[in-house]
Amino acid sequence: MGKRFGTVAILGVGLIGGSIGLALRKRNLADKIVGIGRRQSRLDAAHQKGAVTDTTTDIKQGVAEADLVVVCTPVTTVADFVREMADSVPAGAVITDAASTKASIVTSLEPQVAAGLPFVGSHPLAGSHLTGVAAAIDDLFEDRNVIITPTKTSGSESLQTVTEFWAALGAKTHHMDANAHDEIVASTSHLPHVVAAALAGVTPEPGLPFTAAGWCDTTRVAAGSPKLWLDILQDNQTELLAALDRFGGQMDAFRQAIEDNNQSAITELLEQGKQRRDVVGN
Amino acid sequence: MGKRFGTVAILGVGLIGGSIGLALRKRNLADKIVGIGRRQSRLDAAHQKGAVTDTTTDIKQGVAEADLVVVCTPVTTVADFVREMADSVPAGAVITDAASTKASIVTSLEPQVAAGLPFVGSHPLAGSHLTGVAAAIDDLFEDRNVIITPTKTSGSESLQTVTEFWAALGAKTHHMDANAHDEIVASTSHLPHVVAAALAGVTPEPGLPFTAAGWCDTTRVAAGSPKLWLDILQDNQTELLAALDRFGGQMDAFRQAIEDNNQSAITELLEQGKQRRDVVGN
Repeated sequence: MGKRFGTVAILGVGLIGGSIGLALRKRNLADKIVGIGRRQSRLDAAHQKGAVTDTTTDIKQGVAEADLVVVCTPVTTVADFVREMADSVPAGAVITDAASTKASIVTSLEPQVAAGLPFVGSHPLAGSHLTGVAAAIDDLFEDRNVIITPTKTSGSESLQTVTEFWAALGAKTHHMDANAHDEIVASTSHLPHVVAAALAGVTPEPGLPFTAAGWCDTTRVAAGSPKLWLDILQDNQTELLAALDRFGGQMDAFRQAIEDNNQSAITELLEQGKQRRDVVGN
Repeated sequence: MGKRFGTVAILGVGLIGGSIGLALRKRNLADKIVGIGRRQSRLDAAHQKGAVTDTTTDIKQGVAEADLVVVCTPVTTVADFVREMADSVPAGAVITDAASTKASIVTSLEPQVAAGLPFVGSHPLAGSHLTGVAAAIDDLFEDRNVIITPTKTSGSESLQTVTEFWAALGAKTHHMDANAHDEIVASTSHLPHVVAAALAGVTPEPGLPFTAAGWCDTTRVAAGSPKLWLDILQDNQTELLAALDRFGGQMDAFRQAIEDNNQSAITELLEQGKQRRDVVGN
């Protein structure tokens, strides 16, 4: 009698892929965890850390016995990788991903999904400014939200498997339209990244030794990988531009209120921020 | 034989004042710690927490036996409080503060300092989005920077006492011109606060349940007290407007690069942020 998710193949064993592997092993949910990647050295690191049980640099071979495949590669590469493996996954297997944007991936794969490709997109809202399997941890998904983005043509069994998979890793799962997802993360993730990068970027060098907790918190995500974030920002261009404009309008209002010494306007803007922040807590 | 700082009076026993009291007691640096405030209930809370040994709502009486007075009230009230107590502090006593801006306070008090008032301004770069003595901790200043802003007319003994005081609480002390201080904190503290408040303020309500660590970090300071921050932002208006304009320019560059799909420009802006962020670490 095999374990719940049988053989799981993870394409791209970095922070997210590695954390999936560690969580699967900790929770004893898979018989075999196949790490697939381009560089054997990275796969060896993942194997050594205990995130995967097997490794290969051959995608088709890596997915050949998989019951579930999780594609954890950069946003812009996901759809092509899924197409590349489509004919190699066994009948009954399910494919998902973990990329930070969903509309472009889901739209790109929709013809194949309509034709029966067992793919359903996912985005675990968990991560870090750190990257690579060295930063992977076995409880990355515990109590975190995972947004799953089925389309009208998604197979209901695929959707069920993907939902159960993330739930089994401890996550809270949500089903949402891919465009609605992208609109939300533009405000909750992509805009904050741009803002943090701009804020860190304009801090004068002589000020850096005098930064304290506030600056460190506000700019923390700016330490993330520019390469990964370039992809994300480009991929979610339309929604991000809209979020940038909303933010720019609020900053203009702040600037005007400060220039005018308008106490009630400054207070209202500060209160507005505090109210939304207090809703989230921590 | 009394302890190192004798009787220390703390005007305003909230997060900062309370943490000073706790640190003095933990390090056994004062014979008596007099908490001074308007509301007896707050003073009682500070006393119960062990942050002060004595309490009074009468400023003149509270400072009458002090060797050192630390004014921990909102930015806009410091100078007037210092003037109010000036005739009541014993000869040889020293007065400092802990406010987040320095130029307006130091400038306002300069005539009195030139005439012998033993005041030297301070700003401990330590704090929290939390407020009140309930949030006070005994190691708030350990390894934190404290900027001390003497003027040409500051007494050298006053400066030495204030410097030794913060160092005794575990802080790293720096002497700096008040205007240079305000220019730095405009970028490292006040601008981040405005940015965090604007970012939280424009996050659409339906997105709030889907925020993750990145949003939480980037917006954390927005939970701070609007009342306290209104004072700070107004007080440092000139430097803050300059910092807002630098930030606005960077955001405009980001927006243009994203709209143009200009990969090298986006990458350069992300790299710029990462470089400055990585200098600071944690």
